[in-house]
Amino acid sequence: MRGKVPHLLHCGLVRAALPIPRACTRRIAPRVYFSTRTRDMGRGIKPSRRFGAQQQDVWSIINEAAAASPIQPIVNMGQGFFGYNPPAFVIDAAKGALDRVDCNQYSPTKGRPRLRKALANAYSPFYQRAIDADKEVVITTGANEGMLSAFMAFVEEGDEVIVFEPFFDQYISNIEMPGGKVVYVPMTPPADGASRNTSAGEWNLDMAAFEAAITDRTRMVVLNTPHNPIGKVFSRAELQAIGEICVKHDILILSDEVYDQLYYVPFTRIATLSPKIAALTLTVGSGGKVFYCTGWRVGWLIGPEELIKYVAAAHTRICYSSVSPLQEATAIGFEEAESRGFFEESKREMKGKMDKFNEIWDELGLTYSDPEGGYFVLANFARVQLPPDYVFPPIVANRPRDFKLAWFLIMELGVACIPPTEFFVPENAHIAEDWLRFAVCKEDHILEEAKERLRGLKKYIK
Amino acid sequence: MRGKVPHLLHCGLVRAALPIPRACTRRIAPRVYFSTRTRDMGRGIKPSRRFGAQQQDVWSIINEAAAASPIQPIVNMGQGFFGYNPPAFVIDAAKGALDRVDCNQYSPTKGRPRLRKALANAYSPFYQRAIDADKEVVITTGANEGMLSAFMAFVEEGDEVIVFEPFFDQYISNIEMPGGKVVYVPMTPPADGASRNTSAGEWNLDMAAFEAAITDRTRMVVLNTPHNPIGKVFSRAELQAIGEICVKHDILILSDEVYDQLYYVPFTRIATLSPKIAALTLTVGSGGKVFYCTGWRVGWLIGPEELIKYVAAAHTRICYSSVSPLQEATAIGFEEAESRGFFEESKREMKGKMDKFNEIWDELGLTYSDPEGGYFVLANFARVQLPPDYVFPPIVANRPRDFKLAWFLIMELGVACIPPTEFFVPENAHIAEDWLRFAVCKEDHILEEAKERLRGLKKYIK
Repeated sequence: MRGKVPHLLHCGLVRAALPIPRACTRRIAPRVYFSTRTRDMGRGIKPSRRFGAQQQDVWSIINEAAAASPIQPIVNMGQGFFGYNPPAFVIDAAKGALDRVDCNQYSPTKGRPRLRKALANAYSPFYQRAIDADKEVVITTGANEGMLSAFMAFVEEGDEVIVFEPFFDQYISNIEMPGGKVVYVPMTPPADGASRNTSAGEWNLDMAAFEAAITDRTRMVVLNTPHNPIGKVFSRAELQAIGEICVKHDILILSDEVYDQLYYVPFTRIATLSPKIAALTLTVGSGGKVFYCTGWRVGWLIGPEELIKYVAAAHTRICYSSVSPLQEATAIGFEEAESRGFFEESKREMKGKMDKFNEIWDELGLTYSDPEGGYFVLANFARVQLPPDYVFPPIVANRPRDFKLAWFLIMELGVACIPPTEFFVPENAHIAEDWLRFAVCKEDHILEEAKERLRGLKKYIK
Repeated sequence: MRGKVPHLLHCGLVRAALPIPRACTRRIAPRVYFSTRTRDMGRGIKPSRRFGAQQQDVWSIINEAAAASPIQPIVNMGQGFFGYNPPAFVIDAAKGALDRVDCNQYSPTKGRPRLRKALANAYSPFYQRAIDADKEVVITTGANEGMLSAFMAFVEEGDEVIVFEPFFDQYISNIEMPGGKVVYVPMTPPADGASRNTSAGEWNLDMAAFEAAITDRTRMVVLNTPHNPIGKVFSRAELQAIGEICVKHDILILSDEVYDQLYYVPFTRIATLSPKIAALTLTVGSGGKVFYCTGWRVGWLIGPEELIKYVAAAHTRICYSSVSPLQEATAIGFEEAESRGFFEESKREMKGKMDKFNEIWDELGLTYSDPEGGYFVLANFARVQLPPDYVFPPIVANRPRDFKLAWFLIMELGVACIPPTEFFVPENAHIAEDWLRFAVCKEDHILEEAKERLRGLKKYIK
């Protein structure tokens, strides 16, 4: 393997001295991605402000860089897609559904009754009450469109939505689409994360700061547990405090719990804490995350009828209905998962990948934030010194240090990861500029390959 | 069969005289579907105006009525879902995709390259130029979300979008979601559609009225050909006139051509008429309509790069990406369809169903509007006299006559269809109140069963 990554420093210097090789830059050259007018458009045609001027998103920067890396195939630990297939019993269920006429046609807009029932059955034990499959569950086109439906259902122009920072980037545009204003409340990491391994649980949310951010325009707060990218699982006490503040101020809680089957410390669902909190909570789930099929686009929201009915109305107008055969397969997945021991196995397997992969940081003398849930780990690269004369393309050069670190890893080591400052507002980007996010939901041999490639970092660590 | 529909008139009279039987009304009793506040919601929690107060949509009225009909199973010719499966080569392609890791994970947000390429290859001959698969095609979560993405990309608060009436009802909420205002331009049917069989092509769009509706806030016009519910295929001359008006006023054309493989007269695509028209046109397509799988949620938009890139940006923020394995199957469908003669067979088969089904109207002495494309037929029920003392529930009683006709057919004959006044603004509902829309994309024996049941109408025709 090492032979494929020759002369790391030299390679960077060559680029500094010569015209940037076409193969590396063709797809990543700086360009204005969203000019607001061009000669090809009609005189009066221009995009809405919503989408008229956007910085290129981190996913396309990293994916395009990965495709352009001289080291191929890249080891892609960037985006959180699985490197392996859903379990056979779920795949078989999907194939079976494809043979059924009704499973290939429109599902009810609220989702297939079988899936709503399977979810109600699977989640009722956690809620310690019977979830009403007809009225308290809506199936959406992935968790993403489910969250957009919730914002569309409850946010008016000028309403404020509180988001804890760092945040999954889709939240922001989804809140802004119906005219909402995002109010950020930062979570703070332990101060010494560069010098010792820390726990994701040490990231702290200041409840006084949260409450102080509430105004009379605040309509919702977005919670994410287990958290992406931190890996924090909010404790029962934290959730109780958040919930009580929301009850006090009458604020909806949109709880993104898409990694809810992957937790390595006790996991609490905020909707289970009290009836008053439950009355304000919409819980978001994802079949793609549960059954390793992020491309299936099957998500859901669970919550009180009085909230779900508006989410369902919004979903109907956004996507009409969601993909039928894969809803059916997801239903069968939930029906059989418990008896097959799938959830436990899934958790054990992912925790094993996480621990095995993180050995590399100890080996390199770097530190990491040990996640309490999910499949992302943040590693601290403060000790990594990039070659001072290394040339970065403008699309990266203008971004915080983590973008440069990620670029360097892709181009010189052939490992893709995600720069987490994308999950912060610019003023707070400094908090995360030494960190990188790695997704471990990959095959074991890929993780080993990643570790081998990352050993190439040694010479840059002082 | 006839034995299952006993004493039609008597049945209606019984309902008039006695309390409405529970089995028939449980799910269709009048109720406020979207009260803006209830005791279960927090004091400050209320839905956005967008979804806070909506009349129940025609689909749920008809589906709920069909479920509550005393005649089961209902013959459902209401919603345009297929009563049979996609062709085997497409189903097999989907099953094959489910075995591939990459086909179960996120697709690129713009869609899988293989599908974009297959579509570019399939559509380039119509456009008489090479469509750029990378830049001029975006895959969406069904045509519906594709159209919403286009509105989100180009419509600002207060912008106007022209819609020809009648219209597919989803357009309206999709235009209003980004704050657009719908401006309706009516199409007019032949005056004597109740006394002779007419052609869907006789519905007329007044070009002067269209141009007069344009203001300096007009941003887009929505075109639909083959048209739902009329079945009209706009002629080349009509499209040329529409296109020239749009070029003159710099208006985007969103051309909904989801029934583009089902036409029975020459079919013109407006984007092919001139480079200037093409520069303003986004064409909408649907894998669900082409391959008989409305539940797959695979749609696309084709258009110039300068338009598509904004649609893609909006789509990314609405759904992130679309369903992967079924995109792959749709790609394979397009790769193989031509050589298998699928499109021709599909058209011939649907036209056969249409003609065979429409024999019932001649037999009953009713008239219909012969469709030029698609799978919907409008039949004229002016001569049908509903029993004067028949009792309709308020949800139908407050609607135009076609809702009552549809209700009567469901409850007394066991045939579901769609009342087309839903596709009109209230002021113009009178245009369609004697018509009903039937979807013929059903198995032949179901169509024969529908005809047999519709013979029960004879006694109500004077």
